Amino acid sequence: MPAQQIEQLIRLMSKIPGLGPRSARRAVLHLMNKKESVLLPLIASMGAVADNIKRCPICGNMDTIEPCSICSDTKRDASQICVVQDIADLWALERVGLFKGLYHVLGGVLSAIDGVGPEDLSVAGLITRVQSGIVQEVIFALPATVDGQTTAHYVAERLEKYPVKITTLSRGVPVGGELDYLDDGTLQMAFKARRDF
Amino acid sequence: MPAQQIEQLIRLMSKIPGLGPRSARRAVLHLMNKKESVLLPLIASMGAVADNIKRCPICGNMDTIEPCSICSDTKRDASQICVVQDIADLWALERVGLFKGLYHVLGGVLSAIDGVGPEDLSVAGLITRVQSGIVQEVIFALPATVDGQTTAHYVAERLEKYPVKITTLSRGVPVGGELDYLDDGTLQMAFKARRDF
Repeated sequence: MPAQQIEQLIRLMSKIPGLGPRSARRAVLHLMNKKESVLLPLIASMGAVADNIKRCPICGNMDTIEPCSICSDTKRDASQICVVQDIADLWALERVGLFKGLYHVLGGVLSAIDGVGPEDLSVAGLITRVQSGIVQEVIFALPATVDGQTTAHYVAERLEKYPVKITTLSRGVPVGGELDYLDDGTLQMAFKARRDF
Repeated sequence: MPAQQIEQLIRLMSKIPGLGPRSARRAVLHLMNKKESVLLPLIASMGAVADNIKRCPICGNMDTIEPCSICSDTKRDASQICVVQDIADLWALERVGLFKGLYHVLGGVLSAIDGVGPEDLSVAGLITRVQSGIVQEVIFALPATVDGQTTAHYVAERLEKYPVKITTLSRGVPVGGELDYLDDGTLQMAFKARRDF
């Protein structure tokens, strides 16, 4: 039975994705045991993020500057917009470092089960950007799930009347993947989309 | 490539036990997305813990009052001291709610591999408490591991010259445990320590 303030911190920590009630307890004990080296720096860092992080009004990314550092980077190619589900996917693509265009964060994918409808996604913002006339290609980097693909089709329909090329990430055997362990859908896709060697 | 302040928060979060680099990223995204409902309350709660939590100079527990609420509770039986490895184990025993005596947090167990020696554990504090003459029983609630039992033997030796009864938690089949899934050591222990039905 920890003190009330500790209990409250455990309760809040247990709501962080990846931590449950048990691991939240362990985490809080760790924070208290390392007050100077872990807890205080963490409070300062969270405070800095809370004070300074804004959502980019153009693409939906989070950054300390507004528009975000990607949207305000004039060296990036404004003729390409890569549409992603969330910021985690944007970060993943940035880690790869191949794409030099701009992003658009939808904020989710359509999902009947989770009650996500078109009005919950940032589609209007994407259309406004396409209407500007600078954009030549919209690249869908959406999850290869039913919901992800439904969303891609929906967004593609909304962009139909604009003179913009629409592409999507290729499907196939993941690098390093054993065929034996692949699901049948991916294997079929990879077979149909086979290319010259 | 998130902004520098976000990167720093991810780095700090990834050091919390239970979170790795990947889950820390997800956690930070969650905190940023729920700034008002999650991040700000978490900062306030961490600040309250950092400001108010003290280590009890008697038993080693953490609490907002000093001595801790257990040591200062006059309704608890000061003749029994339960020796635990860390505060998590103290909390676990308090959740069970059976024990009404006091605790002593050793702060770890002896471990050659982790470089934990007798001087790293709060054994002197325990001896001082036993010397007071009030204590009649010291109960070892230490891990049933080699290190835990080595520690119990070491502490028992140090308490040898005092007129105090030393007991330890029983070993046996855990409640709800299938014999088939038990390790051989526990099964042997449970068989040797069998009791009348």
